[in-house]
Amino acid sequence: MQDTHVGLAHGNGGRYMRELIQHIFVRHLGNPELDADADAVPVDCGAGDIMLTTDAFTVQPLEFPGGNIGSLAVHGIVNDLAVSGATPLYLTLAAIIEEGLAVAQLERIVAALGEAARRAAVRVVAGDTKVVRRGEAAGLYLSGCGVGVRARRQQLGMDTIRAGDALLVSGPVGDHGVAVLLAREEFGLMGQVESDCASVLPLTQALLAIPGLRFMRDPTRGGLATVLHEISRASGLGVELAQPAIPLRPAVQSVCEMLGYDPLYLACEGRVVAVVDADDAPRALQALRALPAGAQAALIGSTTTAHTRVVLSTALGGERCLEELEDDPLPRIC
Amino acid sequence: MQDTHVGLAHGNGGRYMRELIQHIFVRHLGNPELDADADAVPVDCGAGDIMLTTDAFTVQPLEFPGGNIGSLAVHGIVNDLAVSGATPLYLTLAAIIEEGLAVAQLERIVAALGEAARRAAVRVVAGDTKVVRRGEAAGLYLSGCGVGVRARRQQLGMDTIRAGDALLVSGPVGDHGVAVLLAREEFGLMGQVESDCASVLPLTQALLAIPGLRFMRDPTRGGLATVLHEISRASGLGVELAQPAIPLRPAVQSVCEMLGYDPLYLACEGRVVAVVDADDAPRALQALRALPAGAQAALIGSTTTAHTRVVLSTALGGERCLEELEDDPLPRIC
Repeated sequence: MQDTHVGLAHGNGGRYMRELIQHIFVRHLGNPELDADADAVPVDCGAGDIMLTTDAFTVQPLEFPGGNIGSLAVHGIVNDLAVSGATPLYLTLAAIIEEGLAVAQLERIVAALGEAARRAAVRVVAGDTKVVRRGEAAGLYLSGCGVGVRARRQQLGMDTIRAGDALLVSGPVGDHGVAVLLAREEFGLMGQVESDCASVLPLTQALLAIPGLRFMRDPTRGGLATVLHEISRASGLGVELAQPAIPLRPAVQSVCEMLGYDPLYLACEGRVVAVVDADDAPRALQALRALPAGAQAALIGSTTTAHTRVVLSTALGGERCLEELEDDPLPRIC
Repeated sequence: MQDTHVGLAHGNGGRYMRELIQHIFVRHLGNPELDADADAVPVDCGAGDIMLTTDAFTVQPLEFPGGNIGSLAVHGIVNDLAVSGATPLYLTLAAIIEEGLAVAQLERIVAALGEAARRAAVRVVAGDTKVVRRGEAAGLYLSGCGVGVRARRQQLGMDTIRAGDALLVSGPVGDHGVAVLLAREEFGLMGQVESDCASVLPLTQALLAIPGLRFMRDPTRGGLATVLHEISRASGLGVELAQPAIPLRPAVQSVCEMLGYDPLYLACEGRVVAVVDADDAPRALQALRALPAGAQAALIGSTTTAHTRVVLSTALGGERCLEELEDDPLPRIC
């Protein structure tokens, strides 16, 4: 491929588009199922429930410490399958490219996407590219679909949550949000925070072995607080959180204090929130902590019938109600 | 939902986003599998090969005679499965919405999407919405994935094409391209052409009953000429076309002559190109013509070992080589 920047002709269905697809996408994502000439491809899912999910990615900037929109897309989709109790198998990928995107940047992104897919043992089996004019996108949008298989009918779901269940988080919160924030360079702060962008499959597989597991979710857009609101709303229960127990990197805390963000509302891209029967909480915590990605896992609170809010007990003995997000604190984080 | 325009807060994972999803998407697309609260959903595909496809849609304007980006998205995905010999079952849908999009327009689009899905007997089982800032999209981009099932291992594929095979098209070409072109109102022409935007499943099902069927494709981006190039390149054969046999609406021909477009390169969104054994061509043509959508189906040419180009014989006895598309004649047509 000789062009250094993507042009509208790379989206026209003809020779330039074929070159772009072959030289960038097929080269980095090639696998037996990915047939760039097919309209649809057969996939073998083996036994079990076939699980589907989809996600779009509009993060800005496209590259940030710890990842880029390509690795983020893989992890975002893989993680939605993983927290549903499934093993991710296949991805599809649609790219909306703005005219003028540097081919070298596109290639870095697709290479990271391919690498993340290989590590997560998923294969990109179908794709589509569209090119839009300058000013009609912000470089690149990715969206995709994930197909996984759930080996047995896992009775996971927010409807299984009961009062007194324990709430666990697998690691520090807000890393991704702060990493992206700093990468925007709007604040003149040097970034010392990397995104936590990663597959959570090892964590969810460890948790699936715990009989008292009720529900798992990855706290992406809207962060930990939003997942807890979803749990509260769906279960009709309140949530009580112990602020000192919530793992938080000092660098994330400092940036949030300086800029006025609440880290509990900032996106993670490699964490799991799990609801487990209180009796199984120690085992679940142990299972998470046995993994490198779960070394800082913590029991952060519990569900209650005492109220229907999400209430945070602070280190100083105060209480603060975590409201549902209204304005977007940080657009285009994922 | 009280807001009349989409704002960034509708993309933040919180209350506004929940309202947008409930009031627009779930209301129009609701079905037993679509659980707006789930990260991934189980789908039952029955027996057969599971087929996957994906597509992104960036058509401009968002609404045009005969359809809108919502119905186009359903038909585009359904048709990729249909031409692969599959029965479409499920769709996933990701929407990238520009801040400021009128909620009423979004609702018209999602309603058309829901109606097209019901008619094609597919269910939207998963979705995602992102909102980007003004100037970072052109109203709305949709992308999605389709899951279908291929009841028996249909030996369809460009690798089965032989010299002397017949080329069929199911109806007039270029309608979608011209309808979108006129809807842009850049040319001061009144639009009397509707997009052919429709599911081709009835057509492909009829063709699947023909034993000599080799390959099917819907001629979207790049039009009929691009599909014929793909066939020529993959089979190593030449293609001979009889221009007078190619169905073309007079209105499409007039607009193309006025504006200097070649209709053979303009997108269709409800047509099928089929390659069949020459002996089965009459039966295939009869099967297509028995359907309302195939009333104007035609035998338009054949494959040959005489050369490896796509050659058009004109009504006046001349010959013209159809080159592979390089510049994009008409960006953002789908």
